[in-house]
Amino acid sequence: MIARRVAETADLVTVALDQLLPRAEGPEQRLMEAMRYAALGPGKRLRPFFAMEAARLFDVEERPVLRAACALELIHTYSLVHDDLPAMDDDDMRRGRPTVHKAYDEAVAILVGDALQTAAFEIMAHPDTHEDPHVRSELVRRLARASGAQGMVGGQMIDLLGVRDDLGAAARMQRMKTGALIAFSFEIPLIIAGAPENERQALMNFAQDIGLAYQIVDDLLDAEGDEDLLGKAAQKDVAKGKANFVTLLGVGAAKERVELLADQARRRLDPFGEDARYLRDSVDFVLKRRA
Amino acid sequence: MIARRVAETADLVTVALDQLLPRAEGPEQRLMEAMRYAALGPGKRLRPFFAMEAARLFDVEERPVLRAACALELIHTYSLVHDDLPAMDDDDMRRGRPTVHKAYDEAVAILVGDALQTAAFEIMAHPDTHEDPHVRSELVRRLARASGAQGMVGGQMIDLLGVRDDLGAAARMQRMKTGALIAFSFEIPLIIAGAPENERQALMNFAQDIGLAYQIVDDLLDAEGDEDLLGKAAQKDVAKGKANFVTLLGVGAAKERVELLADQARRRLDPFGEDARYLRDSVDFVLKRRA
Repeated sequence: MIARRVAETADLVTVALDQLLPRAEGPEQRLMEAMRYAALGPGKRLRPFFAMEAARLFDVEERPVLRAACALELIHTYSLVHDDLPAMDDDDMRRGRPTVHKAYDEAVAILVGDALQTAAFEIMAHPDTHEDPHVRSELVRRLARASGAQGMVGGQMIDLLGVRDDLGAAARMQRMKTGALIAFSFEIPLIIAGAPENERQALMNFAQDIGLAYQIVDDLLDAEGDEDLLGKAAQKDVAKGKANFVTLLGVGAAKERVELLADQARRRLDPFGEDARYLRDSVDFVLKRRA
Repeated sequence: MIARRVAETADLVTVALDQLLPRAEGPEQRLMEAMRYAALGPGKRLRPFFAMEAARLFDVEERPVLRAACALELIHTYSLVHDDLPAMDDDDMRRGRPTVHKAYDEAVAILVGDALQTAAFEIMAHPDTHEDPHVRSELVRRLARASGAQGMVGGQMIDLLGVRDDLGAAARMQRMKTGALIAFSFEIPLIIAGAPENERQALMNFAQDIGLAYQIVDDLLDAEGDEDLLGKAAQKDVAKGKANFVTLLGVGAAKERVELLADQARRRLDPFGEDARYLRDSVDFVLKRRA
Protein backbone atom coordinates (compact mmCIF):
# COMPACT_ATOMS: atom_id res chain seq x y z
CA MET A 1 0.00 0.00 0.00
CA ILE A 2 2.59 2.56 1.09
CA ALA A 3 5.05 1.10 -1.43
CA ARG A 4 2.52 1.76 -4.20
CA ARG A 5 2.00 5.31 -3.00
CA VAL A 6 5.75 5.97 -2.97
CA ALA A 7 6.04 4.48 -6.48
CA GLU A 8 3.16 6.61 -7.76
CA THR A 9 4.80 9.78 -6.47
CA ALA A 10 8.11 8.70 -8.00
CA ASP A 11 6.41 8.32 -11.40
CA LEU A 12 4.81 11.74 -11.07
CA VAL A 13 8.20 13.28 -10.27
CA THR A 14 9.97 11.54 -13.15
CA VAL A 15 7.34 12.76 -15.63
CA ALA A 16 7.61 16.30 -14.25
CA LEU A 17 11.43 16.23 -14.39
CA ASP A 18 11.27 15.03 -17.99
CA GLN A 19 9.22 18.11 -18.85
CA LEU A 20 11.37 20.50 -16.80
CA LEU A 21 14.82 19.46 -18.01
CA PRO A 22 16.16 21.27 -21.09
CA ARG A 23 16.25 19.64 -24.50
CA ALA A 24 18.66 20.88 -27.15
CA GLU A 25 19.42 20.39 -30.79
CA GLY A 26 22.86 22.03 -30.82
CA PRO A 27 26.31 20.52 -30.31
CA GLU A 28 25.74 20.77 -26.56
CA GLN A 29 23.09 18.04 -26.69
CA ARG A 30 25.48 15.51 -25.15
CA LEU A 31 25.19 17.56 -21.95
CA MET A 32 21.39 17.50 -21.97
CA GLU A 33 21.37 13.75 -22.70
CA ALA A 34 23.69 13.09 -19.78
CA MET A 35 21.62 15.35 -17.49
CA ARG A 36 18.58 13.26 -18.39
CA TYR A 37 20.51 10.02 -17.89
CA ALA A 38 21.37 11.19 -14.37
CA ALA A 39 17.98 12.61 -13.42
CA LEU A 40 15.46 10.33 -15.12
CA GLY A 41 16.87 6.95 -14.08
CA PRO A 42 15.29 4.78 -11.39
CA GLY A 43 15.09 6.28 -7.91
CA LYS A 44 12.80 6.18 -4.91
CA ARG A 45 12.30 9.99 -5.08
CA LEU A 46 12.04 9.93 -1.31
CA ARG A 47 12.58 13.66 -0.79
CA PRO A 48 9.81 14.57 -3.25
CA PHE A 49 7.60 11.94 -1.56
CA PHE A 50 8.10 13.62 1.81
CA ALA A 51 7.37 17.02 0.28
CA MET A 52 4.19 15.82 -1.44
CA GLU A 53 2.90 13.90 1.59
CA ALA A 54 3.66 16.72 4.01
CA ALA A 55 1.82 19.09 1.65
CA ARG A 56 -1.34 17.02 2.14
CA LEU A 57 -1.36 18.11 5.80
CA PHE A 58 -2.02 21.65 4.60
CA ASP A 59 -4.42 23.27 2.21
CA VAL A 60 -1.95 23.84 -0.63
CA GLU A 61 -2.03 23.16 -4.36
CA GLU A 62 -0.05 20.15 -5.59
CA ARG A 63 1.60 21.87 -8.56
CA PRO A 64 3.91 24.32 -6.71
CA VAL A 65 4.97 21.55 -4.33
CA LEU A 66 5.73 19.18 -7.20
CA ARG A 67 7.86 21.76 -9.03
CA ALA A 68 9.77 22.68 -5.87
CA ALA A 69 10.22 18.97 -5.09
CA CYS A 70 11.66 18.47 -8.59
CA ALA A 71 14.16 21.26 -7.94
CA LEU A 72 15.14 19.56 -4.68
CA GLU A 73 15.51 16.19 -6.45
CA LEU A 74 17.85 17.80 -9.00
CA ILE A 75 20.07 19.08 -6.20
CA HIS A 76 20.13 15.57 -4.71
CA THR A 77 20.91 14.14 -8.16
CA TYR A 78 23.76 16.57 -8.87
CA SER A 79 25.33 15.69 -5.51
CA LEU A 80 25.26 11.97 -6.40
CA VAL A 81 26.86 12.61 -9.81
CA HIS A 82 29.73 14.57 -8.26
CA ASP A 83 30.01 12.23 -5.26
CA ASP A 84 30.53 9.26 -7.60
CA LEU A 85 33.50 10.91 -9.40
CA PRO A 86 36.91 9.20 -9.17
CA ALA A 87 38.32 12.07 -7.08
CA MET A 88 35.44 11.66 -4.61
CA ASP A 89 33.88 8.25 -3.79
CA ASP A 90 34.98 6.69 -7.10
CA ASP A 91 31.84 4.63 -7.72
CA ASP A 92 31.16 2.82 -10.98
CA MET A 93 27.55 1.87 -10.31
CA ARG A 94 24.53 3.80 -9.04
CA ARG A 95 20.95 2.52 -8.92
CA GLY A 96 22.03 -0.54 -10.92
CA ARG A 97 23.45 1.48 -13.83
CA PRO A 98 26.90 2.87 -14.68
CA THR A 99 27.52 6.21 -12.99
CA VAL A 100 27.56 9.30 -15.25
CA HIS A 101 31.35 9.45 -15.55
CA LYS A 102 31.33 5.77 -16.56
CA ALA A 103 28.46 6.10 -19.05
CA TYR A 104 29.94 9.35 -20.44
CA ASP A 105 33.22 10.68 -19.05
CA GLU A 106 34.53 12.68 -16.11
CA ALA A 107 34.34 16.09 -17.79
CA VAL A 108 30.72 15.48 -18.78
CA ALA A 109 29.90 14.31 -15.24
CA ILE A 110 31.37 17.50 -13.76
CA LEU A 111 29.33 19.65 -16.17
CA VAL A 112 26.17 17.56 -15.64
CA GLY A 113 26.37 18.11 -11.89
CA ASP A 114 26.97 21.82 -12.37
CA ALA A 115 24.07 22.23 -14.81
CA LEU A 116 21.66 20.15 -12.70
CA GLN A 117 22.33 22.43 -9.74
CA THR A 118 21.70 25.49 -11.89
CA ALA A 119 18.52 23.94 -13.31
CA ALA A 120 17.23 23.42 -9.76
CA PHE A 121 17.47 27.13 -8.96
CA GLU A 122 16.08 28.14 -12.35
CA ILE A 123 13.00 25.96 -11.78
CA MET A 124 12.56 27.23 -8.23
CA ALA A 125 12.69 30.90 -9.25
CA HIS A 126 10.39 30.50 -12.26
CA PRO A 127 6.99 32.19 -11.90
CA ASP A 128 5.29 28.85 -12.74
CA THR A 129 6.51 27.46 -9.41
CA HIS A 130 4.48 29.92 -7.34
CA GLU A 131 2.65 33.13 -8.10
CA ASP A 132 4.05 34.86 -5.00
CA PRO A 133 7.68 35.97 -5.64
CA HIS A 134 8.31 36.03 -1.88
CA VAL A 135 7.59 32.28 -1.74
CA ARG A 136 9.83 31.59 -4.75
CA SER A 137 12.66 33.65 -3.38
CA GLU A 138 12.36 32.02 0.06
CA LEU A 139 12.37 28.54 -1.51
CA VAL A 140 15.57 29.43 -3.41
CA ARG A 141 17.25 30.81 -0.31
CA ARG A 142 16.38 27.87 1.93
CA LEU A 143 17.33 25.29 -0.70
CA ALA A 144 20.67 27.06 -1.16
CA ARG A 145 21.21 27.13 2.59
CA ALA A 146 20.42 23.42 2.94
CA SER A 147 22.61 22.34 0.05
CA GLY A 148 25.67 24.63 0.27
CA ALA A 149 28.81 24.91 2.37
CA GLN A 150 26.82 25.08 5.59
CA GLY A 151 24.65 22.12 4.60
CA MET A 152 25.07 19.25 2.14
CA VAL A 153 28.40 20.25 0.56
CA GLY A 154 29.89 21.05 3.98
CA GLY A 155 28.80 17.58 5.10
CA GLN A 156 30.48 16.04 2.06
CA MET A 157 33.67 17.86 2.99
CA ILE A 158 33.54 16.38 6.50
CA ASP A 159 32.78 12.94 5.06
CA LEU A 160 35.78 13.27 2.75
CA LEU A 161 38.10 14.16 5.62
CA GLY A 162 36.62 11.26 7.61
CA VAL A 163 34.93 11.16 10.99
CA ARG A 164 36.87 9.09 13.46
CA ASP A 165 35.55 7.49 16.62
CA ASP A 166 33.17 10.23 17.56
CA LEU A 167 29.40 9.72 17.52
CA GLY A 168 28.73 13.43 17.95
CA ALA A 169 30.86 14.31 14.95
CA ALA A 170 29.17 11.57 12.90
CA ALA A 171 25.76 12.96 13.86
CA ARG A 172 26.76 16.51 12.91
CA MET A 173 28.08 15.26 9.56
CA GLN A 174 24.79 13.41 8.92
CA ARG A 175 22.70 16.49 9.75
CA MET A 176 24.65 18.46 7.16
CA LYS A 177 25.30 15.89 4.43
CA THR A 178 21.89 14.22 4.20
CA GLY A 179 19.72 15.70 6.96
CA ALA A 180 19.55 19.23 5.58
CA LEU A 181 18.01 18.18 2.24
CA ILE A 182 15.54 15.79 3.94
CA ALA A 183 14.50 18.64 6.24
CA PHE A 184 14.10 20.91 3.21
CA SER A 185 11.61 18.46 1.68
CA PHE A 186 9.32 19.29 4.62
CA GLU A 187 10.14 22.98 4.41
CA ILE A 188 8.69 23.15 0.90
CA PRO A 189 5.05 22.79 2.02
CA LEU A 190 5.75 24.72 5.24
CA ILE A 191 6.99 27.73 3.24
CA ILE A 192 4.20 27.48 0.67
CA ALA A 193 1.47 27.03 3.32
CA GLY A 194 2.94 29.54 5.74
CA ALA A 195 2.29 26.93 8.46
CA PRO A 196 2.06 27.83 12.16
CA GLU A 197 5.13 27.36 14.36
CA ASN A 198 3.92 24.28 16.27
CA GLU A 199 3.18 22.36 13.08
CA ARG A 200 6.48 23.53 11.62
CA GLN A 201 8.35 22.27 14.67
CA ALA A 202 6.57 18.91 14.61
CA LEU A 203 7.56 18.30 10.98
CA MET A 204 11.14 19.50 11.52
CA ASN A 205 11.46 17.06 14.42
CA PHE A 206 10.02 14.27 12.27
CA ALA A 207 12.51 15.19 9.52
CA GLN A 208 15.43 15.05 11.93
CA ASP A 209 14.44 11.64 13.34
CA ILE A 210 13.72 10.06 9.97
CA GLY A 211 16.87 11.60 8.47
CA LEU A 212 19.11 10.15 11.16
CA ALA A 213 17.35 6.77 11.07
CA TYR A 214 17.70 6.73 7.28
CA GLN A 215 21.45 7.28 7.54
CA ILE A 216 21.90 4.52 10.12
CA VAL A 217 19.95 2.15 7.84
CA ASP A 218 22.25 3.24 4.99
CA ASP A 219 25.26 2.37 7.09
CA LEU A 220 23.65 -1.00 8.01
CA LEU A 221 23.07 -1.71 4.31
CA ASP A 222 26.68 -0.79 3.58
CA ALA A 223 27.74 -3.31 6.24
CA GLU A 224 25.25 -6.10 5.55
CA GLY A 225 23.48 -5.28 2.30
CA ASP A 226 23.24 -7.16 -0.96
CA GLU A 227 25.09 -5.35 -3.78
CA ASP A 228 22.64 -6.68 -6.38
CA LEU A 229 19.68 -5.21 -4.49
CA LEU A 230 21.58 -2.02 -3.64
CA GLY A 231 22.57 -1.43 -7.26
CA LYS A 232 25.92 -0.13 -6.04
CA ALA A 233 28.99 -1.32 -4.17
CA ALA A 234 28.69 -2.25 -0.46
CA GLN A 235 31.25 -2.36 2.36
CA LYS A 236 32.61 0.97 1.14
CA ASP A 237 33.11 2.63 4.50
CA VAL A 238 34.82 -0.39 6.04
CA ALA A 239 37.09 -0.71 2.98
CA LYS A 240 38.12 2.93 3.37
CA GLY A 241 38.52 2.68 7.14
CA LYS A 242 35.78 5.29 7.55
CA ALA A 243 33.81 5.54 10.76
CA ASN A 244 30.02 5.48 10.45
CA PHE A 245 27.11 4.79 12.81
CA VAL A 246 27.53 1.01 12.46
CA THR A 247 31.30 0.99 12.97
CA LEU A 248 30.83 3.31 15.97
CA LEU A 249 27.79 1.63 17.58
CA GLY A 250 28.00 -1.96 16.34
CA VAL A 251 25.22 -3.64 14.33
CA GLY A 252 22.98 -4.51 17.30
CA ALA A 253 22.99 -1.08 18.91
CA ALA A 254 22.58 0.57 15.49
CA LYS A 255 19.41 -1.49 14.85
CA GLU A 256 18.04 -0.59 18.29
CA ARG A 257 18.73 3.08 17.58
CA VAL A 258 16.77 2.84 14.32
CA GLU A 259 13.77 1.36 16.17
CA LEU A 260 13.84 4.08 18.82
CA LEU A 261 14.05 6.80 16.18
CA ALA A 262 11.20 5.19 14.22
CA ASP A 263 8.88 5.19 17.26
CA GLN A 264 9.84 8.74 18.08
CA ALA A 265 9.31 9.86 14.47
CA ARG A 266 5.79 8.38 14.36
CA ARG A 267 4.84 10.17 17.60
CA ARG A 268 6.06 13.49 16.14
CA LEU A 269 3.11 13.25 13.76
CA ASP A 270 0.45 12.98 16.52
CA PRO A 271 -0.72 16.60 16.11
CA PHE A 272 -1.78 15.81 12.53
CA GLY A 273 -3.91 12.76 13.43
CA GLU A 274 -5.24 10.58 10.61
CA ASP A 275 -4.14 13.09 7.94
CA ALA A 276 -0.54 11.98 8.49
CA ARG A 277 -1.20 8.26 8.04
CA TYR A 278 0.86 7.92 4.85
CA LEU A 279 3.78 9.83 6.33
CA ARG A 280 3.50 7.57 9.40
CA ASP A 281 3.48 4.47 7.19
CA SER A 282 6.46 5.78 5.29
CA VAL A 283 8.61 5.36 8.41
CA ASP A 284 8.50 1.58 8.09
CA PHE A 285 8.87 1.78 4.33
CA VAL A 286 11.99 3.88 4.62
CA LEU A 287 13.58 1.89 7.40
CA LYS A 288 12.80 -1.65 6.24
CA ARG A 289 14.17 -1.01 2.77
CA ARG A 290 16.86 -3.30 1.44
CA ALA A 291 18.20 -0.82 -1.10
CA MET B 1 42.18 56.78 -15.05
CA ILE B 2 39.89 53.97 -16.20
CA ALA B 3 42.40 51.43 -14.85
CA ARG B 4 42.11 53.03 -11.42
CA ARG B 5 38.34 52.97 -11.61
CA VAL B 6 38.35 49.27 -12.52
CA ALA B 7 40.77 48.56 -9.68
CA GLU B 8 38.63 50.48 -7.18
CA THR B 9 35.55 48.48 -8.14
CA ALA B 10 37.59 45.26 -7.88
CA ASP B 11 38.59 46.20 -4.32
CA LEU B 12 34.98 46.96 -3.41
CA VAL B 13 33.90 43.56 -4.76
CA THR B 14 36.65 41.67 -2.96
CA VAL B 15 35.75 43.30 0.36
CA ALA B 16 32.05 42.50 -0.20
CA LEU B 17 32.82 38.88 -1.15
CA ASP B 18 34.93 38.52 1.98
CA GLN B 19 31.90 39.52 4.04
CA LEU B 20 29.45 37.37 2.08
CA LEU B 21 31.37 34.09 2.00
CA PRO B 22 30.75 31.71 4.92
CA ARG B 23 33.25 31.25 7.72
CA ALA B 24 33.24 28.08 9.80
CA GLU B 25 34.89 26.67 12.86
CA GLY B 26 33.93 23.04 12.31
CA PRO B 27 35.78 20.23 10.55
CA GLU B 28 34.41 21.56 7.23
CA GLN B 29 36.56 24.70 7.50
CA ARG B 30 38.94 23.39 4.82
CA LEU B 31 36.06 23.88 2.37
CA MET B 32 35.47 27.48 3.43
CA GLU B 33 39.20 28.23 3.27
CA ALA B 34 39.42 26.85 -0.25
CA MET B 35 36.29 28.78 -1.31
CA ARG B 36 37.98 31.94 -0.08
CA TYR B 37 41.24 31.01 -1.82
CA ALA B 38 39.31 30.71 -5.09
CA ALA B 39 37.10 33.78 -4.69
CA LEU B 40 39.30 36.33 -2.92
CA GLY B 41 42.45 36.05 -5.05
CA PRO B 42 43.48 38.67 -7.59
CA GLY B 43 41.06 39.25 -10.45
CA LYS B 44 39.91 42.12 -12.65
CA ARG B 45 36.27 41.65 -11.50
CA LEU B 46 35.24 42.75 -14.96
CA ARG B 47 31.66 41.47 -14.75
CA PRO B 48 31.00 43.33 -11.48
CA PHE B 49 32.63 46.41 -13.02
CA PHE B 50 30.19 46.29 -15.93
CA ALA B 51 27.27 45.83 -13.53
CA MET B 52 28.34 48.73 -11.32
CA GLU B 53 29.08 51.09 -14.22
CA ALA B 54 25.86 50.24 -16.05
CA ALA B 55 23.97 50.86 -12.80
CA ARG B 56 25.25 54.45 -12.85
CA LEU B 57 23.19 55.02 -16.00
CA PHE B 58 20.05 54.53 -13.92
CA ASP B 59 18.78 55.86 -10.66
CA VAL B 60 19.46 52.76 -8.55
CA GLU B 61 21.14 52.17 -5.21
CA GLU B 62 24.66 50.74 -5.29
CA ARG B 63 24.15 48.13 -2.59
CA PRO B 64 21.74 45.76 -4.40
CA VAL B 65 23.87 45.97 -7.55
CA LEU B 66 27.04 45.18 -5.61
CA ARG B 67 25.48 42.13 -3.93
CA ALA B 68 24.07 40.82 -7.20
CA ALA B 69 27.43 41.46 -8.88
CA CYS B 70 29.13 39.43 -6.12
CA ALA B 71 26.74 36.54 -6.81
CA LEU B 72 27.60 36.77 -10.50
CA GLU B 73 31.34 36.83 -9.71
CA LEU B 74 30.95 33.65 -7.63
CA ILE B 75 29.34 31.88 -10.59
CA HIS B 76 32.25 33.00 -12.77
CA THR B 77 34.70 31.83 -10.10
CA TYR B 78 33.08 28.40 -9.68
CA SER B 79 33.26 27.89 -13.45
CA LEU B 80 37.02 28.63 -13.43
CA VAL B 81 37.64 26.21 -10.55
CA HIS B 82 35.85 23.37 -12.36
CA ASP B 83 37.27 24.33 -15.77
CA ASP B 84 40.81 24.03 -14.39
CA LEU B 85 40.27 20.43 -13.16
CA PRO B 86 42.42 17.67 -14.71
CA ALA B 87 39.36 16.12 -16.41
CA MET B 88 38.56 19.50 -18.00
CA ASP B 89 41.29 21.96 -19.10
CA ASP B 90 43.89 20.57 -16.67
CA ASP B 91 45.47 23.89 -15.67
CA ASP B 92 47.98 24.22 -12.84
CA MET B 93 48.05 28.02 -12.68
CA ARG B 94 45.35 30.68 -12.60
CA ARG B 95 45.90 34.40 -12.00
CA GLY B 96 49.52 33.65 -11.11
CA ARG B 97 48.68 31.19 -8.34
CA PRO B 98 48.22 27.41 -8.19
CA THR B 99 44.68 26.40 -9.19
CA VAL B 100 42.41 25.11 -6.41
CA HIS B 101 43.01 21.42 -7.15
CA LYS B 102 46.76 22.09 -7.01
CA ALA B 103 46.65 24.18 -3.83
CA TYR B 104 44.22 21.68 -2.21
CA ASP B 105 43.13 18.58 -4.13
CA GLU B 106 40.65 17.53 -6.80
CA ALA B 107 37.87 16.52 -4.41
CA VAL B 108 38.09 19.86 -2.61
CA ALA B 109 38.08 21.71 -5.96
CA ILE B 110 34.89 19.89 -7.03
CA LEU B 111 33.18 20.76 -3.73
CA VAL B 112 34.46 24.36 -3.81
CA GLY B 113 32.94 24.89 -7.25
CA ASP B 114 29.67 23.32 -6.12
CA ALA B 115 29.46 25.42 -2.95
CA LEU B 116 30.42 28.67 -4.72
CA GLN B 117 27.55 28.14 -7.16
CA THR B 118 25.15 27.53 -4.27
CA ALA B 119 26.46 30.59 -2.42
CA ALA B 120 25.74 32.73 -5.49
CA PHE B 121 22.06 31.79 -5.46
CA GLU B 122 21.81 32.10 -1.69
CA ILE B 123 23.18 35.66 -1.85
CA MET B 124 20.91 36.58 -4.76
CA ALA B 125 17.74 35.33 -3.02
CA HIS B 126 18.57 36.92 0.35
CA PRO B 127 16.28 39.82 1.36
CA ASP B 128 19.38 42.02 1.86
CA THR B 129 19.96 41.95 -1.90
CA HIS B 130 16.72 43.74 -2.71
CA GLU B 131 13.58 44.53 -0.77
CA ASP B 132 11.32 43.48 -3.67
CA PRO B 133 11.10 39.66 -3.83
CA HIS B 134 10.09 39.89 -7.49
CA VAL B 135 13.45 41.49 -8.28
CA ARG B 136 15.35 38.86 -6.24
CA SER B 137 13.50 36.02 -7.86
CA GLU B 138 14.03 37.45 -11.36
CA LEU B 139 17.76 37.94 -10.66
CA VAL B 140 18.00 34.28 -9.60
CA ARG B 141 16.10 33.06 -12.65
CA ARG B 142 18.11 35.09 -15.16
CA LEU B 143 21.45 34.23 -13.55
CA ALA B 144 20.50 30.54 -13.67
CA ARG B 145 19.47 30.84 -17.29
CA ALA B 146 22.74 32.58 -18.23
CA SER B 147 24.94 30.10 -16.38
CA GLY B 148 23.25 26.72 -16.93
CA ALA B 149 22.96 24.15 -19.71
CA GLN B 150 21.56 26.72 -22.13
CA GLY B 151 24.24 29.26 -21.24
CA MET B 152 27.71 29.00 -19.73
CA VAL B 153 27.79 25.26 -18.94
CA GLY B 154 26.35 24.42 -22.37
CA GLY B 155 29.12 26.53 -23.90
CA GLN B 156 31.71 24.65 -21.86
CA MET B 157 30.30 21.38 -23.21
CA ILE B 158 30.70 22.65 -26.79
CA ASP B 159 34.22 23.87 -25.99
CA LEU B 160 35.06 20.44 -24.60
CA LEU B 161 33.83 18.68 -27.72
CA GLY B 162 35.76 21.22 -29.79
CA VAL B 163 34.62 23.61 -32.50
CA ARG B 164 36.23 22.84 -35.82
CA ASP B 165 36.63 25.17 -38.79
CA ASP B 166 33.36 26.97 -38.38
CA LEU B 167 33.22 30.64 -37.40
CA GLY B 168 29.46 30.48 -36.79
CA ALA B 169 29.84 27.58 -34.37
CA ALA B 170 32.71 29.37 -32.61
CA ALA B 171 30.55 32.49 -32.24
CA ARG B 172 27.61 30.48 -30.84
CA MET B 173 29.95 28.78 -28.36
CA GLN B 174 31.31 32.18 -27.27
CA ARG B 175 27.80 33.60 -26.76
CA MET B 176 27.00 30.70 -24.45
CA LYS B 177 30.31 30.10 -22.65
CA THR B 178 31.35 33.67 -21.87
CA GLY B 179 28.80 36.00 -23.53
CA ALA B 180 25.83 34.99 -21.39
CA LEU B 181 27.49 35.96 -18.08
CA ILE B 182 28.83 39.23 -19.50
CA ALA B 183 25.32 40.04 -20.73
CA PHE B 184 23.95 39.20 -17.28
CA SER B 185 26.27 41.78 -15.70
CA PHE B 186 24.26 44.42 -17.62
CA GLU B 187 20.98 42.69 -16.83
CA ILE B 188 21.54 43.24 -13.12
CA PRO B 189 20.95 47.03 -13.22
CA LEU B 190 18.35 46.62 -15.99
CA ILE B 191 16.27 44.28 -13.79
CA ILE B 192 16.74 46.40 -10.67
CA ALA B 193 15.95 49.67 -12.47
CA GLY B 194 13.15 48.23 -14.59
CA ALA B 195 14.75 50.07 -17.52
CA PRO B 196 12.82 50.90 -20.72
CA GLU B 197 13.19 48.59 -23.73
CA ASN B 198 15.35 50.92 -25.88
CA GLU B 199 17.92 51.36 -23.12
CA ARG B 200 17.81 47.64 -22.41
CA GLN B 201 18.48 46.88 -26.07
CA ALA B 202 21.37 49.35 -26.25
CA LEU B 203 23.12 47.74 -23.28
CA MET B 204 22.46 44.20 -24.51
CA ASN B 205 24.00 45.14 -27.87
CA PHE B 206 26.98 46.66 -26.08
CA ALA B 207 27.32 43.47 -24.01
CA GLN B 208 27.27 41.31 -27.12
CA ASP B 209 29.94 43.37 -28.91
CA ILE B 210 32.25 43.68 -25.93
CA GLY B 211 31.75 40.00 -25.04
CA LEU B 212 32.75 38.83 -28.50
CA ALA B 213 35.67 41.28 -28.69
CA TYR B 214 36.83 40.10 -25.25
CA GLN B 215 36.89 36.50 -26.42
CA ILE B 216 38.85 37.32 -29.57
CA VAL B 217 41.39 39.20 -27.42
CA ASP B 218 41.53 36.13 -25.17
CA ASP B 219 42.32 33.98 -28.17
CA LEU B 220 44.96 36.50 -29.32
CA LEU B 221 46.56 36.40 -25.86
CA ASP B 222 46.52 32.59 -25.98
CA ALA B 223 48.34 32.79 -29.34
CA GLU B 224 50.75 35.65 -28.61
CA GLY B 225 50.58 36.44 -24.91
CA ASP B 226 53.23 36.34 -22.23
CA GLU B 227 52.65 33.54 -19.71
CA ASP B 228 54.22 35.58 -16.90
CA LEU B 229 51.79 38.45 -17.50
CA LEU B 230 48.85 36.09 -18.09
CA GLY B 231 49.46 34.20 -14.86
CA LYS B 232 48.50 30.99 -16.65
CA ALA B 233 49.62 28.80 -19.52
CA ALA B 234 49.39 30.15 -23.10
CA GLN B 235 49.16 28.38 -26.46
CA LYS B 236 46.58 26.03 -24.97
CA ASP B 237 44.16 25.92 -27.87
CA VAL B 238 46.89 25.36 -30.46
CA ALA B 239 48.43 22.63 -28.31
CA LYS B 240 45.06 20.87 -28.14
CA GLY B 241 44.31 21.39 -31.83
CA LYS B 242 41.26 23.45 -30.86
CA ALA B 243 39.80 25.97 -33.26
CA ASN B 244 39.26 29.50 -31.93
CA PHE B 245 38.76 32.93 -33.48
CA VAL B 246 42.48 33.37 -34.10
CA THR B 247 43.05 29.94 -35.64
CA LEU B 248 39.94 30.47 -37.79
CA LEU B 249 40.54 34.13 -38.82
CA GLY B 250 44.30 34.52 -38.53
CA VAL B 251 45.98 37.08 -36.26
CA GLY B 252 45.60 40.07 -38.60
CA ALA B 253 41.90 39.60 -39.33
CA ALA B 254 41.23 38.83 -35.66
CA LYS B 255 42.80 42.17 -34.63
CA GLU B 256 40.75 44.02 -37.26
CA ARG B 257 37.59 42.34 -35.99
CA VAL B 258 38.38 43.51 -32.45
CA GLU B 259 38.76 47.12 -33.66
CA LEU B 260 35.46 46.99 -35.55
CA LEU B 261 33.66 45.55 -32.54
CA ALA B 262 35.22 48.17 -30.26
CA ASP B 263 33.98 51.04 -32.46
CA GLN B 264 30.56 49.47 -32.70
CA ALA B 265 30.42 48.89 -28.92
CA ARG B 266 31.24 52.55 -28.18
CA ARG B 267 28.47 53.74 -30.54
CA ARG B 268 25.95 51.48 -28.77
CA LEU B 269 26.34 53.79 -25.77
CA ASP B 270 25.38 56.99 -27.66
CA PRO B 271 21.86 57.13 -26.13
CA PHE B 272 23.43 57.50 -22.67
CA GLY B 273 25.69 60.46 -23.59
CA GLU B 274 28.31 61.58 -21.07
CA ASP B 275 26.85 59.33 -18.33
CA ALA B 276 28.38 56.35 -20.10
CA ARG B 277 31.92 57.75 -20.34
CA TYR B 278 33.49 55.17 -18.02
CA LEU B 279 31.77 52.30 -19.80
CA ARG B 280 32.98 53.79 -23.08
CA ASP B 281 36.53 54.06 -21.72
CA SER B 282 36.32 50.49 -20.48
CA VAL B 283 36.23 49.27 -24.08
CA ASP B 284 39.88 50.20 -24.60
CA PHE B 285 40.81 48.96 -21.15
CA VAL B 286 39.27 45.59 -21.82
CA LEU B 287 40.65 45.18 -25.30
CA LYS B 288 44.18 46.50 -24.77
CA ARG B 289 44.80 44.27 -21.77
CA ARG B 290 47.80 41.97 -21.79
CA ALA B 291 46.42 39.52 -19.20
